[in-house]
Amino acid sequence: MIVLFTDFGFAGPYTGQVMAVLHQGAPSVPIISLFADAPSERPKPCAYLLAAYGTWFPTGTVLLCVIDPGVGSDRRAVVVEAEGRYYVGPDNGLFDIVTRRSPGARLWEIIWHPGPLSPSFHGRDLFAPVAARIATGTPIEDFAQPAADESLKRGWPDDLAEIVYIDHYGNGLTGLRGTLLSPKARLTVGGQSLRRAATFSAVPPGKAFWYINSNGLAEIAVNGRRADETLGLAIGTEIAIAG
Amino acid sequence: MIVLFTDFGFAGPYTGQVMAVLHQGAPSVPIISLFADAPSERPKPCAYLLAAYGTWFPTGTVLLCVIDPGVGSDRRAVVVEAEGRYYVGPDNGLFDIVTRRSPGARLWEIIWHPGPLSPSFHGRDLFAPVAARIATGTPIEDFAQPAADESLKRGWPDDLAEIVYIDHYGNGLTGLRGTLLSPKARLTVGGQSLRRAATFSAVPPGKAFWYINSNGLAEIAVNGRRADETLGLAIGTEIAIAG
Amino acid sequence: MIVLFTDFGFAGPYTGQVMAVLHQGAPSVPIISLFADAPSERPKPCAYLLAAYGTWFPTGTVLLCVIDPGVGSDRRAVVVEAEGRYYVGPDNGLFDIVTRRSPGARLWEIIWHPGPLSPSFHGRDLFAPVAARIATGTPIEDFAQPAADESLKRGWPDDLAEIVYIDHYGNGLTGLRGTLLSPKARLTVGGQSLRRAATFSAVPPGKAFWYINSNGLAEIAVNGRRADETLGLAIGTEIAIAG
Repeated sequence: MIVLFTDFGFAGPYTGQVMAVLHQGAPSVPIISLFADAPSERPKPCAYLLAAYGTWFPTGTVLLCVIDPGVGSDRRAVVVEAEGRYYVGPDNGLFDIVTRRSPGARLWEIIWHPGPLSPSFHGRDLFAPVAARIATGTPIEDFAQPAADESLKRGWPDDLAEIVYIDHYGNGLTGLRGTLLSPKARLTVGGQSLRRAATFSAVPPGKAFWYINSNGLAEIAVNGRRADETLGLAIGTEIAIAG
Repeated sequence: MIVLFTDFGFAGPYTGQVMAVLHQGAPSVPIISLFADAPSERPKPCAYLLAAYGTWFPTGTVLLCVIDPGVGSDRRAVVVEAEGRYYVGPDNGLFDIVTRRSPGARLWEIIWHPGPLSPSFHGRDLFAPVAARIATGTPIEDFAQPAADESLKRGWPDDLAEIVYIDHYGNGLTGLRGTLLSPKARLTVGGQSLRRAATFSAVPPGKAFWYINSNGLAEIAVNGRRADETLGLAIGTEIAIAG
Repeated sequence: MIVLFTDFGFAGPYTGQVMAVLHQGAPSVPIISLFADAPSERPKPCAYLLAAYGTWFPTGTVLLCVIDPGVGSDRRAVVVEAEGRYYVGPDNGLFDIVTRRSPGARLWEIIWHPGPLSPSFHGRDLFAPVAARIATGTPIEDFAQPAADESLKRGWPDDLAEIVYIDHYGNGLTGLRGTLLSPKARLTVGGQSLRRAATFSAVPPGKAFWYINSNGLAEIAVNGRRADETLGLAIGTEIAIAG
């Protein structure tokens, strides 16, 4: 399976062109768009989102990750192997958290490209062909060389006490792993101190709370309302943890 | 074919995770997203929309339907078989209209789940694995038991004289089957009394009208403009029928 | 491969129903949505967008193109073959630029349809079945007859000095082929005279510029900001070329 994690948005033509390259290079492999609306051009919140959602997929999955504000600059293009999954994309911090949570992770710098490389769309011209090759069994050493893991260099925390994504329902996903928080922890955001609840139906309508979402992140929600509007949440909003 | 009818929206990660489960459980079955923007958490308008659009698909289609405001409560999880199509989802009224229009419909309560069940995402953890099993031929009795049809209990009308969906062009779909209305019927909405027209090009630009859409619903439109803005339509707007 | 180029938007149910028809008629053929948000009901900017993006696909690709404000009128339904790719859709100018840039292009009028034809959704009921037939090798003469190419009749220019699309990042794509412009050309739009740059990282943050995008179009961008908001761009905004 090839999984797309991008900030291409839903509008054409970026996702479609990447899918065309993947279909041609890896004809029998299912392609899934997981996020096309990851935080735009912001590798830091994306890194925590990717670490929570990428690990849900089975071993062997190739994750094509394109949050690439530095396209055209000299940032490295890399492949990371972590716990049997392959991550392909720009080396701008996007893979830092996945890498740090997987002690045996390996990193390669991509030193090849399959033809003309547009300066603005490496997702299509470089990362998609590489993802297709990995998905069809080409050895990584054929197009990449082992390189230094620089995932500690940026100094990002292990968990990020910020909103990293607002979902379709207006819930605010944090960069905090819910199981590492005390069940009695209170998360303060938007001027409210929120308790944990097991599920939406456990709190009264209109009540704000936090819960551990289906991928393990602490998530801020309001029963029956949009939490982003009720609490003023946006990507980057800071969360204070007490208890 | 597996067809998705959800209120997940276009944003990640819900549709992608459901598709991943389906691809793994039913590898060779095409998956189609019909509605990802069905009326959010409102099973009643969704029930009329689903009855109009679900029946368009061929016999054998499995429709995975997730409009599930009660997830985590004790609402039943069900499979409905109606005219050779299978509907999988929560028992909150979503399947009432499909069931009532299909005299021989059968209903099962799902009594199994394939592993850890998150309290907030039964679409991924329960309904998708069930849909994949049905699509690959597993007998329904292996994971569900016949249960009482309660589709009359909610007392919803056979046709709903309300807007049930606003489409991309701003047209307002009603819950009324067009062929059950008199061709001379007038639909009153937004202060205007509208006549039927055969098609857009049959009325002058800027003129509001109703027509029978390509799936049989009476639909409110304005030639060359957005009907929702021109007439103030929203999901739930009531329609008066005359003639 | 079958490629969708439509103004259906992301909302249900149009793309899903078209995909269902294609999956049934051409079961093993990958389907890709390139643009679901092509300029709504505006064949002219779409024609330049399609000419730039359609030619990127490999020979044999079938492009299903539905920008169809005249559905239900007597506009022709056509197939165009240009440089080994097939374009299926309404004859409203959408294929004029593709045709004119391909000297040996051929055009057929579709004279058949596969069953009941709704007056409002030829994309599903006519163009999708035709696209599936072409993709699976049915001779075009089985459902269409050679017809006159009227692509010069509308008198559209070879290149269009207007914005033809605003992408997800707020960049404005023009209908101008970048390689036909002088590298020293200045494009004036929104009161600013813009120079060409090779890539985003070549200009300071906040600076507006034009560049040749990954499909060959001159594109207006601002490093780190949305060009549409900064410069007031919309589909149809005129561009002045100097130098």
